[in-house]
Amino acid sequence: MKIAVLGTGMVGQALAGALSSLGHDVTVGTRDPESTAGKTEPDRMGNAPYPVWAADHPAVTLATFAESARDAELVVNASGGAVSLDVLRQAGADNLAGKVLLDVSLPLDVSAGFPPSLFVSNTDSLGEQVQREFPAARVVKSLNTLNATLMVNPGLLGEGSTVFVSGNDADAKSTVTSLLEALGHTDVIDLGDITTARGTEMMFAGWIRLMGVLGTSKFNWKVVR
Amino acid sequence: MKIAVLGTGMVGQALAGALSSLGHDVTVGTRDPESTAGKTEPDRMGNAPYPVWAADHPAVTLATFAESARDAELVVNASGGAVSLDVLRQAGADNLAGKVLLDVSLPLDVSAGFPPSLFVSNTDSLGEQVQREFPAARVVKSLNTLNATLMVNPGLLGEGSTVFVSGNDADAKSTVTSLLEALGHTDVIDLGDITTARGTEMMFAGWIRLMGVLGTSKFNWKVVR
Repeated sequence: MKIAVLGTGMVGQALAGALSSLGHDVTVGTRDPESTAGKTEPDRMGNAPYPVWAADHPAVTLATFAESARDAELVVNASGGAVSLDVLRQAGADNLAGKVLLDVSLPLDVSAGFPPSLFVSNTDSLGEQVQREFPAARVVKSLNTLNATLMVNPGLLGEGSTVFVSGNDADAKSTVTSLLEALGHTDVIDLGDITTARGTEMMFAGWIRLMGVLGTSKFNWKVVR
Repeated sequence: MKIAVLGTGMVGQALAGALSSLGHDVTVGTRDPESTAGKTEPDRMGNAPYPVWAADHPAVTLATFAESARDAELVVNASGGAVSLDVLRQAGADNLAGKVLLDVSLPLDVSAGFPPSLFVSNTDSLGEQVQREFPAARVVKSLNTLNATLMVNPGLLGEGSTVFVSGNDADAKSTVTSLLEALGHTDVIDLGDITTARGTEMMFAGWIRLMGVLGTSKFNWKVVR
């Protein structure tokens, strides 16, 4: 499948690398490819600059948000939640129309320090905002409940855990579920329409505190039933 | 231990019955004991009226919110979230002072139909509202992430799952953790101070959708790490 991964950060790198390893034709989308390709400094989180990662992933190409989305069959929104709507506008509504849009973003509000709160929650969600603004895209919210490493390698945990899909389009959820299973996820729960993204986005409030007390982000939710 | 369980509904009955079975001296608190003791109709959820339950639990006594709290060493808020602050006011700040207040309530807003949203979330929680209004009580938020049956019998699930405690008082959390372990909980995570109740209360948004797609409330979260 031709896949665009919008976002060059830790989540974008993890997903682009893993999807490329699975044999997909992956392009990473960025605001300014020349600037991204020229980076030499680690990001604010201490992650290596994009070119260091790209050197290890020669099959993954780099393009603008719009170019990558235009040529893709499936688009992954791996940008930060605060800029996601802007990134998707740059990708272009026409380039997203009819396509599966896997949205892994979280609506983090860091304006009041740590822990972040959510800038939309409870009676709305970022997943819904994306779907409303791009009605012709087939938005599937998923993978927003665990860290980037576990998104693409859930087997790192000693036992199976759960991920979720939320969206209005059954075929799109089916496509995403197949991708998730290819990444190693063994328990994918379809929560329902895109309004159920409220639930998974709001799990962040517990997740961030768990990270604090467990001293690691290497954990995941499992629905025991 | 002398325990007051405020609330005569499904959650109050489950906790009062289980804590009594463990050998604690349990009084159920209600607004009007005479009215509660005279009920003959099932509640809106179809649960048997309180006297039917009480006949099976002769060791559990019934008293006003204030009487039950006054005589208790530990108070459980098992009232609906929308009335919890009012119930606790009736119990009386003096009767709660210095005591462990185990708050299992959820701030459900049913005004817009199903699914309920939360009337407080994200940057505040009902647990924090309770602690602010009753600063001398030692509030511990817990058991607000699973159904009443599993609260008191987590072994009904085929594998272990997780519950959480949130609160400002370490001794109070330790007391509650011991009670939870006596009820059969094998993985109790101390999330931190009472502000971490935001996280567990917000997990309701995912829980209610899971109940819909799983067709049962007999499930629980487990933190796999």
